[in-house]
Amino acid sequence: MADPRFFRAVGPFTVAEIAAATGSEIGGAANAALSLEDVAPLETAGPHHLSFLSNAKYAEALGQSRAGAIFVHPDSADRAPACMTLLLSANPYLAYAKAAGQFYPRPRRPAGIGSGAFVDPSVILGEGVSVGHNAVIEAGAEIGAGTQIGHTSVIGAGVVIGRDCVISPNVTISHCLMGDRITLFPGVRVGQDGFGFASGPGGHLRIPQLGRVVIGDDVVIGANSTIDRGAGPDTVIGAGSMIDNLVQIGHNVVLGRGCVFVAQSGSSGSTKLGDFVTVAGQVGIAGHLSIGTGARIGAQSGVMRDVAPGAEVAGYPTVPRWQWLRQVAILDRLAKKKDK
Amino acid sequence: MADPRFFRAVGPFTVAEIAAATGSEIGGAANAALSLEDVAPLETAGPHHLSFLSNAKYAEALGQSRAGAIFVHPDSADRAPACMTLLLSANPYLAYAKAAGQFYPRPRRPAGIGSGAFVDPSVILGEGVSVGHNAVIEAGAEIGAGTQIGHTSVIGAGVVIGRDCVISPNVTISHCLMGDRITLFPGVRVGQDGFGFASGPGGHLRIPQLGRVVIGDDVVIGANSTIDRGAGPDTVIGAGSMIDNLVQIGHNVVLGRGCVFVAQSGSSGSTKLGDFVTVAGQVGIAGHLSIGTGARIGAQSGVMRDVAPGAEVAGYPTVPRWQWLRQVAILDRLAKKKDK
Amino acid sequence: MADPRFFRAVGPFTVAEIAAATGSEIGGAANAALSLEDVAPLETAGPHHLSFLSNAKYAEALGQSRAGAIFVHPDSADRAPACMTLLLSANPYLAYAKAAGQFYPRPRRPAGIGSGAFVDPSVILGEGVSVGHNAVIEAGAEIGAGTQIGHTSVIGAGVVIGRDCVISPNVTISHCLMGDRITLFPGVRVGQDGFGFASGPGGHLRIPQLGRVVIGDDVVIGANSTIDRGAGPDTVIGAGSMIDNLVQIGHNVVLGRGCVFVAQSGSSGSTKLGDFVTVAGQVGIAGHLSIGTGARIGAQSGVMRDVAPGAEVAGYPTVPRWQWLRQVAILDRLAKKKDK
Repeated sequence: MADPRFFRAVGPFTVAEIAAATGSEIGGAANAALSLEDVAPLETAGPHHLSFLSNAKYAEALGQSRAGAIFVHPDSADRAPACMTLLLSANPYLAYAKAAGQFYPRPRRPAGIGSGAFVDPSVILGEGVSVGHNAVIEAGAEIGAGTQIGHTSVIGAGVVIGRDCVISPNVTISHCLMGDRITLFPGVRVGQDGFGFASGPGGHLRIPQLGRVVIGDDVVIGANSTIDRGAGPDTVIGAGSMIDNLVQIGHNVVLGRGCVFVAQSGSSGSTKLGDFVTVAGQVGIAGHLSIGTGARIGAQSGVMRDVAPGAEVAGYPTVPRWQWLRQVAILDRLAKKKDK
Repeated sequence: MADPRFFRAVGPFTVAEIAAATGSEIGGAANAALSLEDVAPLETAGPHHLSFLSNAKYAEALGQSRAGAIFVHPDSADRAPACMTLLLSANPYLAYAKAAGQFYPRPRRPAGIGSGAFVDPSVILGEGVSVGHNAVIEAGAEIGAGTQIGHTSVIGAGVVIGRDCVISPNVTISHCLMGDRITLFPGVRVGQDGFGFASGPGGHLRIPQLGRVVIGDDVVIGANSTIDRGAGPDTVIGAGSMIDNLVQIGHNVVLGRGCVFVAQSGSSGSTKLGDFVTVAGQVGIAGHLSIGTGARIGAQSGVMRDVAPGAEVAGYPTVPRWQWLRQVAILDRLAKKKDK
Repeated sequence: MADPRFFRAVGPFTVAEIAAATGSEIGGAANAALSLEDVAPLETAGPHHLSFLSNAKYAEALGQSRAGAIFVHPDSADRAPACMTLLLSANPYLAYAKAAGQFYPRPRRPAGIGSGAFVDPSVILGEGVSVGHNAVIEAGAEIGAGTQIGHTSVIGAGVVIGRDCVISPNVTISHCLMGDRITLFPGVRVGQDGFGFASGPGGHLRIPQLGRVVIGDDVVIGANSTIDRGAGPDTVIGAGSMIDNLVQIGHNVVLGRGCVFVAQSGSSGSTKLGDFVTVAGQVGIAGHLSIGTGARIGAQSGVMRDVAPGAEVAGYPTVPRWQWLRQVAILDRLAKKKDK
């Protein structure tokens, strides 16, 4: 059970309610009236808990589980104990994510302006907005209904934030237009100048960065990640993109919908990514490239050329993943051969 | 045109004024009295806009451009339309950077102390200093004339900041002496303890870090970058150096003038860099090394040995760039050979 | 001498006092009553300064040093000038760390609540707690005796912090239980959601992260590092672990005692590390791995498989260090051969 100091489950929900909310079919022991009080892993779940099996590899744990109900793919349903109520789903993990979100809705701070917060009189606050203690919102900003601004966060002049966003504490936003239901975790920096300068014999001279950051609906940006504003065109984070911690997005970069950037990865300026591109941890992408829809970039890779839609690449510089695996194997063999 | 919610161009300026300010020569249609209202890219510029051509590769776009005036190298001048006023310059990009900075001077917050800010009575504030809302300045700090301290930023005891600096919001500075015209972007951390400890059977014991951070004039430090103070000697960031986001500079590191660190790169402790060293993205430099003036380190490289002045290196561990390219080519060939 | 604007040495201490505090034996000129006023490097130390020799490589500097007393290994004692008082120790660097900490104890802010700070009435503050200006502490948090909360830092609801911890400015903590004597440097983010989501045709859906972060005694976490809370199990940072700047620790990761993570390294979710594992700079560790006690991971490596206790590995993917060195040597030789 989650630590009640930090989490509170709402509910209970019946199996029937969960099935309806997640689009699952009830099977197995099929007790639609069973009352579910919480979610739990297979190993620790009890008779009033909801669990899931998303990987056939763990089917053995399923046989041992005391869970009252589980999400399971129809193909693995026969591995469940006879007394278990099944919620059959083609994507049990996704169904579980929905149900868990039902038990643990994101907590919402009460509407109103916290102590010590500075909100410029020209700021437009939607209904139910919560402004944290000691936060700062500069002139002309607009904050959509239901949005929460974290303690000590700073929202710059003219910034527009949509509805039901969660801006965590210690965040800085400037020169930015944001959609709805966006989450920025603590320490995120959005909208500062891109890294643009002209160099001469006297040194480097910064070039005014005259673009913005445009962030689509449902985007998540991880702790201490940095998104620079565009130099003239905008930096764009497509709707539904998931950005992990300590990620760098350079000026003019455009992410399509649903892109994933794992921790400590980054993209240099002006690179364009299609939809649902996956960038693994500590990857670096050079500037002015084109990465096709659905491409997958392996961890720690260095991308120095365009990547075709759907391609899976790895290495530095990146090559098709199978080719990188061969490079690794060959080098390994050569190193061992030296022994003889 | 830049979004007026975030940017406001001053001006107009005549071609003659721009030419004088940038040291360019007027040519082509040569209308020195032409009034310029804004800067714009070649493709979108109109008859009262100023643009530039810095790369002969884009000369075709020049022929199509409707810009009133452009910065151009004399060698490419004949590619411009007959009706265009030319500003001839040996370094058109640098001239453009100067002119763009004239149209878009950095905004300046009004002098004074923001609401909720704590400024210790012993702090010395120069003329025109702006202290943001909820900022904190501890005892004995000195802030030079015209400098802006961002909202919620924290300036530690005894810190000295020069004139006309811009400290963005959510910045932390301690144990530091700073020159003039320095910009720190949001989330920068300067002056915390270096990573120094002695290890024994009982664990690790921290060693007091008794040095400072000394930052030269005109330095720029990107969002969420971290500069540790020295262990006894100082950590030094040479004048005019440009540091991008999420960069780590360890204790006792010394950067010469005009060094460039691209995003997510870092240097371990006690390494010394000459002037105008370029460190590309995600590079790691080991400690106690010497990197010569003008050296260039390729992206994602791992520097484990000294680098000679002017050398261009890449790979992990770094080798001369041409040699790294050969390593890549050979490995590629071997991997493909395996097919047969 | 350290800059008195930032550091103040307490003392003086006699050689006898230092010997007792560090468990060293007095030798050489053996003046137990000698008064020591400060610590200093061998090169600059004077007759009332304490220094150390931890590396036989610098024994020559020892011969030239004017230090009044030094920590030295018995094996190098004969290299010291005749007039020098020796503090003989099997681990001179560790002894020096102790003594230097005696001269420069960490400064402590006065107890009390700073101006503009918000402390929920339900918060339990131990004796001598210092809450910085404009800090925020939410409902139900408990702060142990002698702990300092930095200016503008935010402590979330229910967080428990032990005794004598130093939370620097601009830090964010939530969903976390912390031991005693822990130091968090500026910009650290602890306890935000791990990067967990389920993906379907409609996009990505976040999964509630129902675990905590548990941090053992004496842990140090560097500037702008990020520690995500667990998904259900906890994220655990073992006692005495030292984490440098810009490090990422994913959800459910478990560190044993005394682990070291150098700057810009990171571990993906659910990986378990034993005690005293050393992870060098910019290393990436994949998820769900097991890294044995005492293992050492070379800089910039990519760990994609388990690492045995005590193993020293390097490369991407990691192999035993000697094997990686061979890979490097072979590739180097092949690249040069091509010339002929």
